Amino acid sequence: MRSALSWNDHRVAVAVGTLRERTPLVHCMTNVVVAGFTANVLLAVGASPAMVENAQESAEFAAVAGALLVNLGTLSRERDEAMRAAASSAHAHARPWVLDPVAVGALSYRTALASELVGLSPTVVRGNASEVMSLAGASAGGRGVDSTVGSEEALAGASALAGDLGCVVAVSGAVDYVTDGADVVEVPGGDVMMTRVTGVGCALGALVAAFAAVEDDALFAAAAASAVLAGAGERAGVRTGGRGRGTEIQDRESGPAFGTEGGGRGAQTPRAGAGRDGLARRPRSVAPEPVRWASGEGARQLFSTTTRRLTVSTPLAP
Amino acid sequence: MRSALSWNDHRVAVAVGTLRERTPLVHCMTNVVVAGFTANVLLAVGASPAMVENAQESAEFAAVAGALLVNLGTLSRERDEAMRAAASSAHAHARPWVLDPVAVGALSYRTALASELVGLSPTVVRGNASEVMSLAGASAGGRGVDSTVGSEEALAGASALAGDLGCVVAVSGAVDYVTDGADVVEVPGGDVMMTRVTGVGCALGALVAAFAAVEDDALFAAAAASAVLAGAGERAGVRTGGRGRGTEIQDRESGPAFGTEGGGRGAQTPRAGAGRDGLARRPRSVAPEPVRWASGEGARQLFSTTTRRLTVSTPLAP
Amino acid sequence: MRSALSWNDHRVAVAVGTLRERTPLVHCMTNVVVAGFTANVLLAVGASPAMVENAQESAEFAAVAGALLVNLGTLSRERDEAMRAAASSAHAHARPWVLDPVAVGALSYRTALASELVGLSPTVVRGNASEVMSLAGASAGGRGVDSTVGSEEALAGASALAGDLGCVVAVSGAVDYVTDGADVVEVPGGDVMMTRVTGVGCALGALVAAFAAVEDDALFAAAAASAVLAGAGERAGVRTGGRGRGTEIQDRESGPAFGTEGGGRGAQTPRAGAGRDGLARRPRSVAPEPVRWASGEGARQLFSTTTRRLTVSTPLAP
Repeated sequence: MRSALSWNDHRVAVAVGTLRERTPLVHCMTNVVVAGFTANVLLAVGASPAMVENAQESAEFAAVAGALLVNLGTLSRERDEAMRAAASSAHAHARPWVLDPVAVGALSYRTALASELVGLSPTVVRGNASEVMSLAGASAGGRGVDSTVGSEEALAGASALAGDLGCVVAVSGAVDYVTDGADVVEVPGGDVMMTRVTGVGCALGALVAAFAAVEDDALFAAAAASAVLAGAGERAGVRTGGRGRGTEIQDRESGPAFGTEGGGRGAQTPRAGAGRDGLARRPRSVAPEPVRWASGEGARQLFSTTTRRLTVSTPLAP
Repeated sequence: MRSALSWNDHRVAVAVGTLRERTPLVHCMTNVVVAGFTANVLLAVGASPAMVENAQESAEFAAVAGALLVNLGTLSRERDEAMRAAASSAHAHARPWVLDPVAVGALSYRTALASELVGLSPTVVRGNASEVMSLAGASAGGRGVDSTVGSEEALAGASALAGDLGCVVAVSGAVDYVTDGADVVEVPGGDVMMTRVTGVGCALGALVAAFAAVEDDALFAAAAASAVLAGAGERAGVRTGGRGRGTEIQDRESGPAFGTEGGGRGAQTPRAGAGRDGLARRPRSVAPEPVRWASGEGARQLFSTTTRRLTVSTPLAP
Repeated sequence: MRSALSWNDHRVAVAVGTLRERTPLVHCMTNVVVAGFTANVLLAVGASPAMVENAQESAEFAAVAGALLVNLGTLSRERDEAMRAAASSAHAHARPWVLDPVAVGALSYRTALASELVGLSPTVVRGNASEVMSLAGASAGGRGVDSTVGSEEALAGASALAGDLGCVVAVSGAVDYVTDGADVVEVPGGDVMMTRVTGVGCALGALVAAFAAVEDDALFAAAAASAVLAGAGERAGVRTGGRGRGTEIQDRESGPAFGTEGGGRGAQTPRAGAGRDGLARRPRSVAPEPVRWASGEGARQLFSTTTRRLTVSTPLAP
């Protein structure tokens, strides 16, 4: 069955409220580029991040954390060893864990590591189209950390991979797709500027872990995390003055882009489907009214907080 | 004897002036999550940060730096080895050094490492209540990097630990306590938003090292560092529109929270004593006037610079 | 021959346009303090950053990336091994690579490593005056990561080093100098605030790699990168209200420093030639008009984007 989940769906607001109330401890094994950003995104959403990456402690910590994130960026020998131990421990202790196979397919060493890790029953695999297609066995020709194909093209591979592994697979792109092999949830929204800030895709992996720590339904957890991030990015776009399909977020200096139609700056549009962290989104129309959450002070708070983080890396008031 | 030191105390302004004049080289061995933030906080205060973390260089560098920070976050085998070498070198060369025992008590490997490091005569041990109580031998049940008890409850343990080790112990919380086992200095101030930004507690460890590099009195150095950070956070809160006990920093969108009494958002208040980096502060009343330093252009400059850093991660103007 | 290249030179705008069009993949082996900032600067300029630092993958990745950056900050055993492998691979595959010898001269281990790496034919060596003079064999007495001499003093050493190695050497300072041993290009501009933000010098190394990936003339590539960064910093200074030689960027609170002559805050001026990341610039006069690019929407876009990054760490609107 195919359905959609938008960030302004009531169920998302409820899930955010649950997360805020339970403040799950999220064990992050992630790359050095995005570690600080990831911690702040988790704090903004209401989770409690902790980065423990060494081989002596990772298994012990994975056994007690609410969920585990294993992100393959900036691998090292010790991280490799520690990640295997942590994933095994999470599996043994029935803790949800998320695999983010950064740049798998482009580099042989981590491709082999990812193949082993998927054998440890990840709850969710989150990647861009190239990474997911590579894991699924299709040749997708990734280029470093960017995807060279759109998320739609990876959907068949994602479904097959989810069925094979018995897990949920989330593919980031202009539209995010989340599937368990049978059902598919589409998550629309976001903003093209999200592809121009490092760590947005990696932070999504951490958000998926946070929601998986408090929601039993992994398909919904992954979709809710994608929706929250899409909403935060979209609102950041609105607040910084950009709107309209085909139009990048405008710099404050050049004024808001009201009334632009069909992409006045088409030449500036990044390659479709490409993105620093596998989280490319095509610009899309956004409502002229300020966006609103369906309910919940907790949700509103989260939303504006997350938005602020993104705003920091997008245009500032002069 | 019990006394208090506020960020608007004249002695703090003088200490900041001294630090700015001498620009001490601070050797930071800290975790990857907060390394960039820590460097920027040290630059803002007027110190010269340098991160040297490998086993080949750490002892050589600790012998020449003005002070050393050893922060146990994101440990690795090589960091472990390098930290022992650096702490030994600092001790041998009579350089002040600060131990920040992140998550000690919650994880057995680093708890054992911390027990060894305290034998190398740290000048200051800085932690949250859980960490300090764990080092002091009390059972405090830390949860990852957050403290589960208030700073007041750790004061007896902190005093005992300081007496045993012959060093200064600083406990972060809604009120910071700094003690050498005989005297206790209370440092009030700060803002609850400081618990929602990653790295604030870790940056405090670096600030303590910076002040210890230029002040012979370690008790005062640690208290001055705490006061500077409390002042920066408090002012960031004022500038971003939040005020009043029990009220979180307000988002610009929702307008400033003038007139709120007794915590209109009580449900949003984080667990007392908890905080991402062991630096929890309960919200407190702040004066309606813009805060001012008692003296010193250097201090003013520092203050606004530090504030800006925090402002970056707290609400921005729309 | 001696010439100059300013950020508002038409050739710089054209080079930025080329870079944006080709989006080169830049393999960054850099330190943990600045990894996130570096990735965002590269994204802002239009390049595609990827951090790959382990010994298993670095040679494979260096063979396919558009250019390689080797920055010696936060060295470790595995990074050491991986950097040697990557530099050898880049050399073998005729890929441009940039060496940023952070703190060389101050620490013996990395000084020895840098001496070996320069034997692998770097395309560009980029450092501050102390680092370049150390590599050139002169005694320059570096102090941690800061330079203690001005860039002018290192020019003779830089030229000799460039001639010896058959590469381009770029020295950062109040004025940047770029030389291939025969010709010298001066790059003026920038702002003193650039010395108060961590990672600015390190990001310059990454920008040099990005331009070297798309420009065959390494002398021009290094000069264009310096010019782009100088322009971004200068404009950030203008936007944040500081102007006038000898005057630091002003905090918004204290109002813009119009009319200040000869450095009303001389006491606040950092040591000449010093700077966190080897990128010190003396304050200089800037035109009262908003700066403008000679041509090119792409360039303008880059510029404001890069400026925003710097603005994040410099004064914010209240």
